[in-house]
Amino acid sequence: MAAVTYELIKTCKQSGARLGKLHTPHGTIETPIFMPVGTLATVKTMSPEELKQLGAQIILSNTYHLWLRPGHDIVKEAGGLHEFMNWDRPILTDSGGFQVFSLSDLRTIEEEGVHFRNHLSGEKLFLSPEGAMEIQNALGSDIMMAFDECPPYPAERDYMRPSVERTSRWAERCLKAHKRPEDQALFGIIQGGEYEDLRRQSAQDITSLDFPGYAIGGVSVGEPKDVMNRVLEFTTPLLPANKPRYLMGVGSPDSLIDGAIRGIDMFDCVLPTRIARNGTCMTSNGRLVVRNAKYARDFRSLDENCDCHVCQTYTRAYIRHLVKCDETFGFRLTTYHNLYFLLKLMKDVRQAILDDRLLDFREEFFEQYGFNQPNAKNF
Amino acid sequence: MAAVTYELIKTCKQSGARLGKLHTPHGTIETPIFMPVGTLATVKTMSPEELKQLGAQIILSNTYHLWLRPGHDIVKEAGGLHEFMNWDRPILTDSGGFQVFSLSDLRTIEEEGVHFRNHLSGEKLFLSPEGAMEIQNALGSDIMMAFDECPPYPAERDYMRPSVERTSRWAERCLKAHKRPEDQALFGIIQGGEYEDLRRQSAQDITSLDFPGYAIGGVSVGEPKDVMNRVLEFTTPLLPANKPRYLMGVGSPDSLIDGAIRGIDMFDCVLPTRIARNGTCMTSNGRLVVRNAKYARDFRSLDENCDCHVCQTYTRAYIRHLVKCDETFGFRLTTYHNLYFLLKLMKDVRQAILDDRLLDFREEFFEQYGFNQPNAKNF
Ligand SMILES: [Zn+2]
Ligand SMILES: [Zn+2]
Repeated sequence: MAAVTYELIKTCKQSGARLGKLHTPHGTIETPIFMPVGTLATVKTMSPEELKQLGAQIILSNTYHLWLRPGHDIVKEAGGLHEFMNWDRPILTDSGGFQVFSLSDLRTIEEEGVHFRNHLSGEKLFLSPEGAMEIQNALGSDIMMAFDECPPYPAERDYMRPSVERTSRWAERCLKAHKRPEDQALFGIIQGGEYEDLRRQSAQDITSLDFPGYAIGGVSVGEPKDVMNRVLEFTTPLLPANKPRYLMGVGSPDSLIDGAIRGIDMFDCVLPTRIARNGTCMTSNGRLVVRNAKYARDFRSLDENCDCHVCQTYTRAYIRHLVKCDETFGFRLTTYHNLYFLLKLMKDVRQAILDDRLLDFREEFFEQYGFNQPNAKNF
Repeated sequence: MAAVTYELIKTCKQSGARLGKLHTPHGTIETPIFMPVGTLATVKTMSPEELKQLGAQIILSNTYHLWLRPGHDIVKEAGGLHEFMNWDRPILTDSGGFQVFSLSDLRTIEEEGVHFRNHLSGEKLFLSPEGAMEIQNALGSDIMMAFDECPPYPAERDYMRPSVERTSRWAERCLKAHKRPEDQALFGIIQGGEYEDLRRQSAQDITSLDFPGYAIGGVSVGEPKDVMNRVLEFTTPLLPANKPRYLMGVGSPDSLIDGAIRGIDMFDCVLPTRIARNGTCMTSNGRLVVRNAKYARDFRSLDENCDCHVCQTYTRAYIRHLVKCDETFGFRLTTYHNLYFLLKLMKDVRQAILDDRLLDFREEFFEQYGFNQPNAKNF
């Protein structure tokens, strides 16, 4: 049996969204779920205790970054990533592919793998499907991702087709190189950009390899939201219903809801933590840039509809003061709230699925957040 | 009755150090005590919950910094500093004097007060005894400090004498300007540098004004440790036994012990938090610079004799990784441990006083920490 199994609990009669459970070696996750990103074996500014307090069920960590710092050998020597960072709930690691393609200059893609330069030191490096498996096996994540090429948007069909085919061959090599299938699940990644026929081909190639879960990659790379939604509409039906579906790199509130409606079970994104470190918060009434002068004497909580510890305890005026002074604790507070906000949103989404009313929930949420307004901001 | 009162519990038969209690509007403090510094209404990187968990009984905050950001009017509007920063235990605020003299260029001292420039914006500002009282009354700290001049070290006797006399006149003006004596205690500050006669004159002037507590200022400004110890030896006997004695700006482990032995009850310093943000830790075996390469694969705790949450949970290898990557969480961990270490040290000092063996404790601690070695580091 695979290290990770998916249990479909119910399908929303109104939207078709899936309520499920993901059973992993480090516990069971309720889906649809948002996964906070802990790039360097820490979700920036947060402690593991805080992540549990705000409801994180699973986190994502980045293979590429941990490979460079501190090195997967050190993490392995520590007893694996869970032990190293004191996180006893599930961890998903990406394959490093996305960073190789987005952070590195001078990359050369060959059949064997990718040559590129370390984005910190400029040193020449090489990553292959086998290398990505070796690193992730050393990290010991519950869910590993296959090493793929993540093409840019837009990409010509002539570029995309051989890329998709190579990603399929790499997926097969990943499966073969994976040394710990009994306690680490390897997910395959569907590529193909905005091209329906290429997504279909990719889905057929990858699902034929029988991974315990599938991701849709190559989205959230700059394409309009309607393009992403269209891609989901023709891609998720190609995936088996008894396996989890993970939409990579997506974390704006609207896209989480729209993804769930299109059959997605798992999401991750740096958005909530990254904007928090810029003093920007997600609230039930939309974006709130707490560093703005108008909050200097605003003694209300960040989000008056939020019951998180930060909103129960601290004022906009205090948080603004900290953020303006570059005080770490300010960024802890905005990060905590933003993560809580998205995890609470997913909880509400799961409840709406249970109640067969996710489309109604979407309307209510969009209306209050301001997504229905003309020229609505992205998040 | 004064807002803050001191209760002498016992005097160490071996050393003469005092064990006491300080009763304040926000609770009782056991002395001798170390006060963590929360400059801008936050102890850098820490939450109030963590400060309580690591045993902080009282914190210090800086009048000068809060005056500039966010402004004492905003703190007052929030309901005072305790409310603003969610800290319900005692707070001591300094007078702003030290920052005016240490951070600002182009200062001009007049009888009325000090003209200087805002160290952030260059804007011209003026602070007087009355101004320092107004700001601290707005902040609502449990213990306020009189506005004094903190002369540099070394300072000529010809400079020091008029400075001490002016500080005494300012102390009188502070007492008159203080608007909330019923719930805020104002402490006087003894100056006089290394000059015994000037310390004597200052102590006579200031204690004649009957403050509820006294500080020894103008120390830890670059003078050798034996000079500071000598100053304490001739100054603390000049202070009434029924009032608390606060040694300003001192926080190295050796000086805390040596200060207690010379009759000091309260200490504050940015040292433990500042060096933590540089990846340096205080341990029972001396300084440990956790960012050093030799800790990359060291899976022991920062201090194997420490029972703090950090030492019970995280390894040097993990903390080094975080610190090297400039990850906030790393600085949270080093800060937490360093504060715990000093607060635990003060707890041990209190126990040693109770057991009439503080000189023996000093020897044991100095030996293990490495202070007895030739060319011992400062902290
Ligand atoms: Zn909140
Ligand atoms: Zn410790």
